[in-house]
Order: sequence, then structure tokens, then C-alpha cells
Amino acid sequence: MKRLLLLTLTLSASAALADEGMWTFDNFPKDKVKKAYGFEPDQAWLDKVRLSSARLAGGCSASFVSPNGLVLTNHHCARGCVADLSTAKQDYMKNGFHARTQAAEKVCPNFEINKLVEIRDITDKVNAATKGLSGEKYVAAQKAIAASEEKACATSPDVRCDLVSLYQGGRYHLYKYQRFQDVRLVFAPETDIGFFGGDPDNFEFPRYALDFAFLRVYQDGKPAKTDPYFKWSQTGAKDKELVFISGNPGTTLRLQTIAQMANARDRSLPATLQSLAEMRGALDQYATLGKEQDRTSQGLRFGLDNSYKALRGRQEALVDHDFFNKLVKQENDLRMKVNADPEMKKQYGAAWGEIERAVKRGNELATLVGYTNGGPRSRLFGYARTLAEAAEETVKPDTERLPAYTDARRPSLEARLSASAPVHPAVEEIVIRIWLTNLRAELGPDHELTKSLLGNESPASLAKALVSGTKLSQPALRKQLLAGGQKAIDASKDPMIRFVAKILPLATKVRKQYETEVSSVVDRNEELIAKARFAVYGTSTYPDATFSPRLSYGSVKGWVEDGKTITPFTNLAGTYDRATGKEPFALPPSWIKAKSKIKGEVPFNFVTNNDIIGGNSGSPMINQNAELVGLVFDGNIHSLGGAYGFDEKLNRSVGVHSAGMAEALRSVYGATELLQELGLPTK
Amino acid sequence: MKRLLLLTLTLSASAALADEGMWTFDNFPKDKVKKAYGFEPDQAWLDKVRLSSARLAGGCSASFVSPNGLVLTNHHCARGCVADLSTAKQDYMKNGFHARTQAAEKVCPNFEINKLVEIRDITDKVNAATKGLSGEKYVAAQKAIAASEEKACATSPDVRCDLVSLYQGGRYHLYKYQRFQDVRLVFAPETDIGFFGGDPDNFEFPRYALDFAFLRVYQDGKPAKTDPYFKWSQTGAKDKELVFISGNPGTTLRLQTIAQMANARDRSLPATLQSLAEMRGALDQYATLGKEQDRTSQGLRFGLDNSYKALRGRQEALVDHDFFNKLVKQENDLRMKVNADPEMKKQYGAAWGEIERAVKRGNELATLVGYTNGGPRSRLFGYARTLAEAAEETVKPDTERLPAYTDARRPSLEARLSASAPVHPAVEEIVIRIWLTNLRAELGPDHELTKSLLGNESPASLAKALVSGTKLSQPALRKQLLAGGQKAIDASKDPMIRFVAKILPLATKVRKQYETEVSSVVDRNEELIAKARFAVYGTSTYPDATFSPRLSYGSVKGWVEDGKTITPFTNLAGTYDRATGKEPFALPPSWIKAKSKIKGEVPFNFVTNNDIIGGNSGSPMINQNAELVGLVFDGNIHSLGGAYGFDEKLNRSVGVHSAGMAEALRSVYGATELLQELGLPTK
Repeated sequence: MKRLLLLTLTLSASAALADEGMWTFDNFPKDKVKKAYGFEPDQAWLDKVRLSSARLAGGCSASFVSPNGLVLTNHHCARGCVADLSTAKQDYMKNGFHARTQAAEKVCPNFEINKLVEIRDITDKVNAATKGLSGEKYVAAQKAIAASEEKACATSPDVRCDLVSLYQGGRYHLYKYQRFQDVRLVFAPETDIGFFGGDPDNFEFPRYALDFAFLRVYQDGKPAKTDPYFKWSQTGAKDKELVFISGNPGTTLRLQTIAQMANARDRSLPATLQSLAEMRGALDQYATLGKEQDRTSQGLRFGLDNSYKALRGRQEALVDHDFFNKLVKQENDLRMKVNADPEMKKQYGAAWGEIERAVKRGNELATLVGYTNGGPRSRLFGYARTLAEAAEETVKPDTERLPAYTDARRPSLEARLSASAPVHPAVEEIVIRIWLTNLRAELGPDHELTKSLLGNESPASLAKALVSGTKLSQPALRKQLLAGGQKAIDASKDPMIRFVAKILPLATKVRKQYETEVSSVVDRNEELIAKARFAVYGTSTYPDATFSPRLSYGSVKGWVEDGKTITPFTNLAGTYDRATGKEPFALPPSWIKAKSKIKGEVPFNFVTNNDIIGGNSGSPMINQNAELVGLVFDGNIHSLGGAYGFDEKLNRSVGVHSAGMAEALRSVYGATELLQELGLPTK
Repeated sequence: MKRLLLLTLTLSASAALADEGMWTFDNFPKDKVKKAYGFEPDQAWLDKVRLSSARLAGGCSASFVSPNGLVLTNHHCARGCVADLSTAKQDYMKNGFHARTQAAEKVCPNFEINKLVEIRDITDKVNAATKGLSGEKYVAAQKAIAASEEKACATSPDVRCDLVSLYQGGRYHLYKYQRFQDVRLVFAPETDIGFFGGDPDNFEFPRYALDFAFLRVYQDGKPAKTDPYFKWSQTGAKDKELVFISGNPGTTLRLQTIAQMANARDRSLPATLQSLAEMRGALDQYATLGKEQDRTSQGLRFGLDNSYKALRGRQEALVDHDFFNKLVKQENDLRMKVNADPEMKKQYGAAWGEIERAVKRGNELATLVGYTNGGPRSRLFGYARTLAEAAEETVKPDTERLPAYTDARRPSLEARLSASAPVHPAVEEIVIRIWLTNLRAELGPDHELTKSLLGNESPASLAKALVSGTKLSQPALRKQLLAGGQKAIDASKDPMIRFVAKILPLATKVRKQYETEVSSVVDRNEELIAKARFAVYGTSTYPDATFSPRLSYGSVKGWVEDGKTITPFTNLAGTYDRATGKEPFALPPSWIKAKSKIKGEVPFNFVTNNDIIGGNSGSPMINQNAELVGLVFDGNIHSLGGAYGFDEKLNRSVGVHSAGMAEALRSVYGATELLQELGLPTK
């Protein structure tokens, strides 16, 4: 925090009070909050908030909102489940889902919810394990300590433990989660209102979206007892009110070096954006063919659109010369201070240069690493890859395996592979065809990998053969191949397995090379910079986001843009004004029908100045009484640059208001039983 | 030249001999050529070469190869004609085209060929006209002098005159061309061999592509007399031989300022690449639906792929830190020298800062300018736009019109609008839908233009309505609307005309704003920098490419890459080794049939170190006797960065060898009459 503050202070004195930071629960700046808002959360408050919060393993946040396992998250976070439960005949994405009894709640295939029950600092242990090592040995030692610590901690399949690197290796914490693997769908509105405004309105405000859904966690076939939980606030957030957001921000890169950021700006972000744009073009085109094509490609298209806009936001920030120069100045300030002290200079001074060289080397390897260690966005390819890799890894000692295949992670692996999720062959074919086309274009038709994969086939003919030939859509076969290990993989004639088998040897080779020459160098030197930063600025700061639980604070607050004031609330009536009748601005029949009944003045969406980022979707927004006043579902367009730095003037979290959700449950959906469970009036 | 030499000299002494430069015919460095190769072209030689060379108005180069109007260019330059003449039943793209008699030669819709007959320097006149002016007045004066000079020069519809700005406004030349508007297709091979290797092999070498075609220019219904012309060399280019390339390089930006290049790197290039990628994804997907979908989208897809790869090459160059820092050093060197002289500092010193500010302002306006002054890659939209704009512009005095609508350009305008070219509705719908989707995404759903264009429609429903409703595919209607002027446009109920009419007022407004605040500032200050450059480095240098005739010199020469030597020739036999049977590596039946007959050892494709860029496609490669030894059809991947700087070690031109073309005409196509016309043995 201090680091950024130092800089901001040069701009304006009041900036010192900026509500910046995605804080870990064990280092929350209570005093800052007290100073700014007159409320100081105590340890009991923090513990209650942490234990009422949850994480969707698939990449979202959530919270418990009843003592009986009821979970609140976003519609777009539950959409994987809603879509997987849908068929051409019964389309819950289109029509919504509403279980009026617990018996009607449906199991989400492959959903997992985690609750953080313990944080342990094991920095000293990790440092001791990697002391004096570099390159391959450093990587091996890191892997080994992570595997053994996670294994020792994960004493049952209901427990998940993650070694989390914070402050770019400045601290290593062991996070222990309770796992809920029986997750059921309770309620989801129609996509037309859950994602009203679609991609055009995504990351924008004013906004009108009922982006919420209810899930329920079960244990032993019964609703889990979840206490503590967040009480639902009837009134919800008010203008200027202090709001906390408890969630799992995915990735910020604010502590990266300039060499890394320039590389993102010049190479990795543009390349990713181009690839997303091409895929999006293809799938949108496919979706025009008809309703079923639209439905089966919807999930992938939503993900592509969302990533595309989010990454463009990052790119926008990095190509803003003023913004970038500020980051350069920050780095120079730290380096100057390090170099001014002979001892620090000796210990840390070379780290930035080392990272810059590693980044350069990384670029030379990037294409090959990407194509051998990545893959098309295909479920079938993903199954094959996981199965073939699991076979290779499982025979190794636990401490030498890739993280996804350690004993501690085995329950997750098995759950993932045995879940019954639909596969859409035409969509699979598209993503594999495009991946092969680009592989050939980027590695060249004469590269060993291109030749070995394509032979005399074209990308289109091979994609077709792979998708129509593989049987990996069958959970039973996957289970069998996982259990059978290397022998089963070697014996399998499944074309997708054989396809992946051609990639794996090269994948292992270039991954090792990359680890030795690039990532270990970066990790090693990031650790040094983290230490330098602690030495220069102290430790009362927050680490970059790592999809682990964080708490941010702020208040309900609009902003000013191009001289125009954006007020912080929209209301339900505005939704009807914005509707055009054509997607993505078409309202579902239920809303059209409820128009006269719905209380138009009730707040619908709103913004706060909390510091959040992708992964925070589904986060509870709570007041100082730890009551639920809203639900994060987005950030405004400016918040996207938040990956690299927080701008309190412009960055905003966007949420669904608790009163708006309640009013919809009441007046549109007549969800009496849910309102009762939430402790809300039913009329 | 000197400017770049100064820099290169610091790297290696021999670099002074680099065969760099796209020289104008009136300032060709004869002495340099003599020094390097012992041959000094005289004025008669230069005149003959200029008059034997040609330009396709659509964006390629070409040459006359017989006294009877026979024109040689690339297959990919003639593809617009070949595709427009094709139908689902008679697909000349797939099957090739071969007129064995002149009577069988088919008129290319909307093709024009230009031959440069005169160059006049009118720098003083232009400078006098714009002296002391800035902003809107500067733009108006520039427009007026261009219009009046071009009009005075273009004394008949057979003459076309272009005011060409060279050296970024350092010189203004009036180029007078003879126009050939009756262009007919004589010969085109099958696309499978004309574009063998397709996109994966594009910009690569070794290479195997018969990328040539023959056209013929007619006058008064008879083959035009074209003397001088290039005699076809039977032996063709040999290793290390001196080779000249005469053609029309489209755009280089080597004299831009760093602010402009950084802007291309950070903003305009990534944005364009993303848009191309999305369009490519959509059209490739559409093409998978069937043969006819493939055929009707082929032309657009080729263009997208080609631009995509070319612009990625530029991007690669700019994000290469070493390359970019070299450019920064160059600019700093010039600015230092300018600032060291008080008089120069006063005259020129502020120019770089002015451009930087204008570029920044340009970014703020870019999205709106782009969407109002650009449009989807749609023929129908293009027709509507041209018609509506022509009506508005034609009532203005000639000197105040947009350049495309001056009296001097009227014949081209009429020819373009009355040409009968096929329209593919499904493809039109795709490009318009995507354009509307992106317009809404980038301007926002609440922008006045978005609202006025979309109303309550979705991009898909509006695109469908526009394409199915418009009648602008009919040449007669277009002719009528052009003749009818504003009254006819206002009265027209054609939905595409009405659509465009909604855009035009805003387009005019923001274009004026852009001209005043951005482009005029850039132009004005580029002129100043050009003058500074002449003052510091002298005038024996070449200007940036502007799609006007240029001559480059060099020699047949391979290169070394990653320690591997790339030899400069491939031969015909190699084609059969590379063929897989699947597109784009599938040979056409004619080649499979001719395999035993064809002389495998004959050179097929080859490389030289000439300095070329996009627009040079179709350029004759000639020896010192002005005989045709090859045909440019590509540059290697390194040449793409040539937009910003020439690297003699890596940049290569790629050509089809004259002996290879002759052998194909003989042994595959039995084109006796063509061989005879070219003065070649028929057996």
C-alpha cells in the first residue's frame, strides 16, 4: 500500500485516504478503515465475514445466506451449471430455473464450493527449502514443498489446501478450505434479465441486470449446516454508506516489473486479444445458424466476450502513456532506494535486469510453450490431456508431480473427470480446427509438431476426425482410463488420446526448459524484489490478487466522467426504459408480465469505490453489521486497468442491490420459500 | 538514404553498400548501383523501364510483356477479376482460365491499368498555396491546389493525374498516367497452384507458387499497342545477379516520428489486427458450410489473411525493443542536430512535439472518425456511401470536394459504379452485422450514432434487412442515382441509401474536426521535419512509399536464419514433395497429370535482397538488359517490418522465376500462343 501511496501522494494529499487494496484477512487495515469511516472491524467480525464467504472452484466468489447451505452468487457464475443442466428441450438458460422445493434442486455437474477455514504462514519453511537454489533445482524444491505441505494439511477429501504465494513470493501461506462437492441449483433467472444488456453493457454503468443465482451445498445428501452466514438487508446499501466486499479477486499484476508489463502490453495481451477475437468471430457466426447452435455455443461465447473486454481494459491502461509512466516512476523510485544502500544493492540490485532477460528468453520460447502446454478450448481435448498427463505424473513420487496431479488434489481430479457434462461436437470441432490452423501458422508447416499432428490432414479434416472418433464424452470411459493409468493410455486407440500423446513428450521438454530458463528466474528474482520492497516500504501493504480470499472496503459512490456525473444507483423502472425487445435488450416474458406489479423505485444496480477485479464476481457486499446489502457482478470499464493500478477517481465495483433482488423474487418470481429462508417479507 | 546509412554505419562498415531504397525514377542512385554492381543505368534505360511498367489501380504492380498489350501480374492481383467472372457453375478460381484466342479474352469488371508517362515537380506551387496557413484553411488550400492541378493535367478521360506528396511533404510531384480501362483476362492458373501453400506459406520461403496471370489492355476494342515492353528472359535470374524491381510499393512509414510509431504499436495496429482476426474467424467459419460459401467468401478471406499477416509483421518489428530503440536513436540524432543550430531550432524544433500532441488528440477522435468515415467491407454499403457522398460533393466547387469526387477523378468514379460485379448477400450480411456489433460495443449502446442506426433493431436483424432490402447490386440503378444527384438520393427509399444518409452528417462533422485538429497539424509539421531532414542530411535519399512508381535494386541472394542458410532458389520438382493432397497443399489435376513431363530442375521461386513492400506484388524483376527474369509476388516474413526500416541481412523479395513460368506454360498448360507472343520456345 505504502508504495502506491507514496506515488499517489505526489498527486493529491487526499489520495492518502483512497480505499485501495484487496487485503488478506490476516492483515486487514482496521485502523485505516476506522480513520476513514469511523468503524473498526474486530477479529470476531473478520472471522464471521471470512466464514460466511465462499469461493467457487471454477473461478468466482459467493456467500452463505442461510444456515441451511443456501449460497448466493452471480447468474454468470452459475451459468456453467445452468447450461450443463439444459437441453434443447428444457433450456434453463433461456427460461430460468426455480426449484420450489429442496427435492427439485438439481445437482450441478462438476461444481465445487470452498470455504476458507484456516491461514498458516509457512514462509520460513518454503524459503528454507529453496535456499541457494536456482533453475531446475529451485523449481523441484518449490514443487516438493508445495506438494508435501498440501498433503500433510489435506487430511480428508473434504479438505483442500493450497500453498499461496503472496507479494510475489514475499510470503507463502497455506490456505485450508472446507470443500463442498455436492452443489445444487436452486434458482436462476432467465439469461435475458440475468445478463440484460449483454456484451454491450458488460463492464458499463448505468446498468440493469439481475445477475444473481442461488445454489445450495449438501453434505451426506442433506443441506449442509452453514453458520455463520450473511443476513439479507431489506433496505440494502445507501449512498455514501461504508461497504465491504469479501471475495476472491483473480489476478492483479501491480507488483510486476516494468519489463513484464511492457511485455504484456507489446506481446502477450495483443496476441491473446487476437486469438479471442478470431474465436469469437467464428462462434458468433456459428450461432447465427439457429437456436440450438446459439444455445450450445453460448457458454463459450460468453467467456470469450468477457475475457476480450476485460483484457482490452488492461491493454488500454498499459498503452496510456501517463499511466505507464507512473508505473515506471514507481519502479525507478524503488530501484533508486535499493541502489542507494550498498547492502541492499548487493542483495537485490540485479533482480530487475534478471527478470528482463528472462522475459526476453520467454518470448523466444512462448509460441512453442503455448502450443504444447496449452490447448484448444475443447472439453474433449481437455479430458484427453488430463488423462494422459495424470498417467504420466501419478507414477512419479508425489513431490515431483505437476501440482494438479498430487495426492492432495486427487479428489478434485477424480470429481472433474467423472462429472457428466454435455459435449457439443460442432463447437468442439470449431475450436480444435482454429487451434490447429493457428498452430500451423505460428510454428510453420515444417515444424516437427505441425507435421506430427497434421500429417497429410488439414486442420478441418483432422478436427472432424478427432471429434467424431473420440469416445471421451463418456464419463465411464474417462473413469476407466484414469484408473488404468499409463497402461490403459498406451493401449487406448481413442484418436484424441493418441493426438495428445503426440504432444506430451515435447510439452514436457519445453516446459522444463521454460521453467529452468524463464519462470524460475522470474520467481527467484520476484522474491528478491518483494524483500526489497518490504525493506524499503515496510509490510503494511496488500499483495497482488491470487484468487484467494480478500477483503476490500469502500463506499457507495458515483463518479465523474468527461465532466458528467454518474450517479451510483439505477432502479427497476429504468430496466423497462432500456428494453428494445431485441437481444441483448429483450426482457423475458416474466418481467414483461410483472411490469405493473414491480416497484419501479426500488434500487436495482449500484456502484461503490471498492478495489476489486475479475474473480470477485459473486462477492457479497456487506455493511458494517455484516449484513448483505448487494452482490458484486462487475466492475466498470475503468476498473479493468485495475490489474496494474487502482484509480480511486474512476474505478468502481458494480453490484445488484439487495432490495432489488428481493423485489424481483417477490414481484416477478413469487419465490415465497426463498424469501422466507432469507428472512424477508413475502409481500 | 543518408539518414539511415548514418545509423547503419555504426553497426557495420559494409552496411553502407546495403541495397536499400524504393527510389523515384527521377532521383535514382545510378552511382550507387555502379559502385556496387559495375552497371550504371542511363536515362534511356530508366525511361524504358518506367514505360514498360504498370500499376493496377486496385493496388498492385504489373508490366507490359509484349507490344500487343499483354500484361503480366500476379494471380493474386488478378483474383478480383477472376473471381468476379466466376459463378457457381464456372469457377475460374478453382479451374483456372485460359483464353486460347483473343476473342476468348474476358473483360474484367472494374479493372484499370495505369502507365506513368510524366513526372512534374510542383513543390513550389503547393508550398506557395499553403504558406502560412494552418488548420481548416491549410486543409482547404491543399485540397484546392490538388484539385486544380490534377484537373489541368487530366486533359482527357484516358489520362489520370495524381498529386503525390513525397518525403512527408518535402516534395510534391504531379504524376501523369495513361489510363487503360478495358482490361481483359487472358490466363490465370488454378488457385491451388497460384496460391499453393496458402496462408501458412504466405510471406514464407522456401516457396512453391505459380502466382502469375496475364491480362491484356485494349483500346477501341483492339489490343493496345504497348511499346516499350519487357522481353522475357529464357534463362531468368541467376544466383548473385543484379536485379531491378520496378513497381508501386504501397506504404512505408520510415520517416514517421516516434510518437506516430509508438501509437501504431500501442493502438492502431493492435486494434486493426483484432478486427481482422474477428472477421477472419467469422468468414472462415461461414466457408465451412459448403463449396459455394467457400467460393463466395474466398476473395474477402484472402484479403483478410494477407493483411493480417502483413500487419502482424509490422507489429513484430515495432515491439522488437532493439529495432524500436534504433528508430528512437535516429530521431534523437536529427533533433539534436536541429536543436544545435539556433535558426533550425526556431524553424523546425517544435515539430515533433506538435505531432505528438496531434497524435494524442487523434486517439480521442479515432473511434468516431473510424466508424463514421470508414464502413464495413461490404460492396453494397460502399456503393451507397459513394453515391450519397458523390451527390453531396458534386454540387460544391471542384476545388472544395473530397479528392475522390473531383472532376479529374469523375471517369474513375463512373467506371467503378457502373461496373457489373457480383454481390454475395450472405457475405455482405456477415460483414455488416459484425461492423454494427463493434460500432455498438465501441461507441456504446447510448451513443447518438448507435441509436440512430440501430433503433430497436439488433445488428443481425438490421444487417439482414439492409442486404435483403437494397437494390444497389443493380448497375443500372447505381448509374441512375449517380446521374440524379442529391435529388435522387433524397428521394430514394433504398434502405442502404437511407442507412448511409444517417451517417453522413456526423461523418462530415468529425472529419472536419479531425482535419483541423489532427491531420493538418501532422501534415504541416511533417513538412517541417522533411525540410529539416534535407537541411541536415541532404537530398540524395528516397521518400517513403506512396503507391507511386519506384525502382529498387539488389541481387539474387539467400539469407541466414537461426544459423541456417536459406538458399535463394526452389525448383519445380520441390512442389510435388511439398504437396499433401489437402488444401492449401493440394495440387490441381493439371499439375498432377503433368508430373512426368515437367522439368523438375527448372527454378520455380527465388529471393533477392531488393527493398520492397505490399503494392509491389506483380512487379517485374529485370536484369541489366531490362529483360524480365522474374515476377515479385511476396516478401519474406522479415520484409514486413520493412514498413519501418530495411534490414539487408534478412529482408527479401520473393518472386516467380521467368524460366519456371515458361516451363509451366509449356509443360502443364500447353499455352503455345502465349509462349509465341512472349518470344519463347513452345517445346
